[in-house]
Amino acid sequence: MRPVSLPILLDREARIPVFEQIAIALREKIKSGDLAAGALLPPTRTFAADVGASRSTVVNAYDQLVAEGYIEGRQGAGFVVCDIGALSLPARQAVEVATSVKPRVMRAFRPGEPDMRLFPHRSWGKAVARLCRRAPEEMLGSMPRFGHEGLRAAIAQHVADWRGLSVDPAQIIVTAGASDALELCLRSLCVVGDAVALEDPGFRPLTQFVRSQHLMPVYLSSDGQGAGLPTAAKVAVLTPSQQFPLGGSMSPQRRAGFVQWAQSGDRWIIEDDYDSEFRYAGRPIPAMAGIDGLSRTIYIGSFSKIFANGLRLGYAIVPMALLDQVAATQRRFGARASLMPQAPLAEFMRTGEFYRHLRRVRRIYGQRRVVLTEALRSDFADVGRFVDHQAGMQIAFHLNKELQDLDIAQRARAQGLEIEALSQYCLGLARYNGLLLGFCGFDETELAEGLKQLRLVLNASIQ
Amino acid sequence: MRPVSLPILLDREARIPVFEQIAIALREKIKSGDLAAGALLPPTRTFAADVGASRSTVVNAYDQLVAEGYIEGRQGAGFVVCDIGALSLPARQAVEVATSVKPRVMRAFRPGEPDMRLFPHRSWGKAVARLCRRAPEEMLGSMPRFGHEGLRAAIAQHVADWRGLSVDPAQIIVTAGASDALELCLRSLCVVGDAVALEDPGFRPLTQFVRSQHLMPVYLSSDGQGAGLPTAAKVAVLTPSQQFPLGGSMSPQRRAGFVQWAQSGDRWIIEDDYDSEFRYAGRPIPAMAGIDGLSRTIYIGSFSKIFANGLRLGYAIVPMALLDQVAATQRRFGARASLMPQAPLAEFMRTGEFYRHLRRVRRIYGQRRVVLTEALRSDFADVGRFVDHQAGMQIAFHLNKELQDLDIAQRARAQGLEIEALSQYCLGLARYNGLLLGFCGFDETELAEGLKQLRLVLNASIQ
Repeated sequence: MRPVSLPILLDREARIPVFEQIAIALREKIKSGDLAAGALLPPTRTFAADVGASRSTVVNAYDQLVAEGYIEGRQGAGFVVCDIGALSLPARQAVEVATSVKPRVMRAFRPGEPDMRLFPHRSWGKAVARLCRRAPEEMLGSMPRFGHEGLRAAIAQHVADWRGLSVDPAQIIVTAGASDALELCLRSLCVVGDAVALEDPGFRPLTQFVRSQHLMPVYLSSDGQGAGLPTAAKVAVLTPSQQFPLGGSMSPQRRAGFVQWAQSGDRWIIEDDYDSEFRYAGRPIPAMAGIDGLSRTIYIGSFSKIFANGLRLGYAIVPMALLDQVAATQRRFGARASLMPQAPLAEFMRTGEFYRHLRRVRRIYGQRRVVLTEALRSDFADVGRFVDHQAGMQIAFHLNKELQDLDIAQRARAQGLEIEALSQYCLGLARYNGLLLGFCGFDETELAEGLKQLRLVLNASIQ
Repeated sequence: MRPVSLPILLDREARIPVFEQIAIALREKIKSGDLAAGALLPPTRTFAADVGASRSTVVNAYDQLVAEGYIEGRQGAGFVVCDIGALSLPARQAVEVATSVKPRVMRAFRPGEPDMRLFPHRSWGKAVARLCRRAPEEMLGSMPRFGHEGLRAAIAQHVADWRGLSVDPAQIIVTAGASDALELCLRSLCVVGDAVALEDPGFRPLTQFVRSQHLMPVYLSSDGQGAGLPTAAKVAVLTPSQQFPLGGSMSPQRRAGFVQWAQSGDRWIIEDDYDSEFRYAGRPIPAMAGIDGLSRTIYIGSFSKIFANGLRLGYAIVPMALLDQVAATQRRFGARASLMPQAPLAEFMRTGEFYRHLRRVRRIYGQRRVVLTEALRSDFADVGRFVDHQAGMQIAFHLNKELQDLDIAQRARAQGLEIEALSQYCLGLARYNGLLLGFCGFDETELAEGLKQLRLVLNASIQ
């Protein structure tokens, strides 16, 4: 079979990124029938040369269409068009739907959110629909105490494979995101007046929750190697894999120090592992909770950043000795996690589709990260510096001291950028002056445009 | 077309209720092909006479199969078998699924939970699958601030039709159940030390949450006509449609009194309308929030009791003047409601399937209520009394004073019953001695069995 020929015109001036332009053109040809089921697409290298784009751009476009179920890769044969007959709609209706779904308005450089344009809506929809046919009761049957059993098993497998943690699914509590998990654990462990050690700089809503519970925040000064030991506290909430917001992982010495600190008293560590799946180089750093075999450590994970925020699903993995206590807290305050997304997510993880997506976005985010870090190195070296941790979803760019981050962030917002000032994350004595630049939610064109805007804002501030 | 003949043997001794036995037999015949697509079922009256069951039992069985998508009613033609070809599974796989889904273990007389055996899993699954095909992006696209727009519009329509409330969808905030809504509102309205008026007897987790926020609970003595006015409080949380747990709706005078109380100071009413859709006689009582046009009243609703607990969806309807304040609280503590069930639920409400289900379960719960109340009147008159409010999901049965409710509840639990003592709901000065008997989660056979057990427990206590 010979590959079809695909004359596609790209618009270099358009705000739509090139990979998306290619995907749109192919999608339309498949929907209209111009590209029939079984048709062989040109190899990525040839196609890239034909349309004058880079090969990785074409790979991204093909990946997008694979995720959406329009094309599939066949061993040794390249990419062929799927039979979408059963799934496609009459043209008019399809257009209506397309216009009724508003695309996400996310402006550079909003940190910590996945790019839902890359989400495999179609294959996720298929997985959900499959479950709806096979066992609809699983989605809304009885409400299990700690969450759907299949999902808890899938999470146990996930943290074993990705985080080096060996846990019993019975220790896993599915929650409505990581913040629900954090609240559940703090409520279980602390009584009024207890000191809770928090990283500084850190996640402000957490300190607000701690205060609202009449607990006492104690700040741990954090740097590129994580936080130092607290003098006295009942619980320490840490981000050892990737300090938030500075980036960088906690050194092995400090990890060991914290574990010792917790074991030497009636103290607990909560490991908030919010996006550690995103490492772009080297091997994943095993979770801290593995060091002490989850005896004084609670591990908290989330699907909001690595998969979809809209699921509102996270989890806490708690030491066996704490299970009853946490269960009692959950009974008192009520479970918040919806049951409905749990069975489909379990299925998506079990069949490997979840991981295909995770690896794919990690690759794309990695490319975006390179665009951002290269631009910062080449075009922004005069205004600040950053440490490249090759992980996470944002870069902390430290500004030279003659520039004020709050001022820059405000001016940037006036220009339509969503930039956060590092000083806003300083909770106690920490003093940082910089910009937090997310790079995951924006393609290369959007990043380039955002960087251009940011440079203009900085130029105006320097004068 | 002549109706098929359906020889079905019923087992009167079986623990499976008769309507379920009929549904099982018909389902098997349809799955095996004994009953072909298009076959006409016998009219309910004839069939009831043939198998020796009541007509309402047959109606329930047919309703169940309609909800599951096995049969459908045709105007003037009775019920015919659907073509389930596309949906059915090979026999072996179907059996596996059936055995892998554990039936809900819910024991009489657990209050306040719907019977998920009646849930239209099949048509819900179809609605979800339809959406998955048509617009999968809607289920997990961007996370709207206050919830899915279509669901907020459907809720506005719902409260207009069922609760007499005229609201703008912009005022509606979708939450992770009613307790999330209550917490969100209390956090928005109160500062440390504020007094919050709660009904006594009432919902204990609420008083625990109030205390955990360092607010001061002030108890309002409630009777069959709702609560009396508080001396001083910032907020009053009320259940005017159906006092929890006593039952009974608040008198118009008291409603007016509360509205005046709120308007005469910087005070707020939170109307917790947790199951007011379940009224078995007369017209629905309009929501209290309608009296003051939602100026000082926040209305809280939930899908947990009237539809499915597993969705974890509820909502708060807040006065326009409070929206910014509530939005700020939500940003601080994070939104908890999963986006995924919201679009399907909106669709289910919009197409009317939600209401077909709601009306059906209301009818069935109404029948179960009659079974319970008649038994209480005829067989339990010597041990206590109750007021028939013809609404809600449970009956507060007040015990004669020589019987101790905690003691009875404990003995009943030892016999496998889930009975709660009214005295456990007494939070302040209220003194009630009785049993809270839920009637929705159990069919007539299970209720009869539960009542037999309860009678034995009471007999043993009287001696």
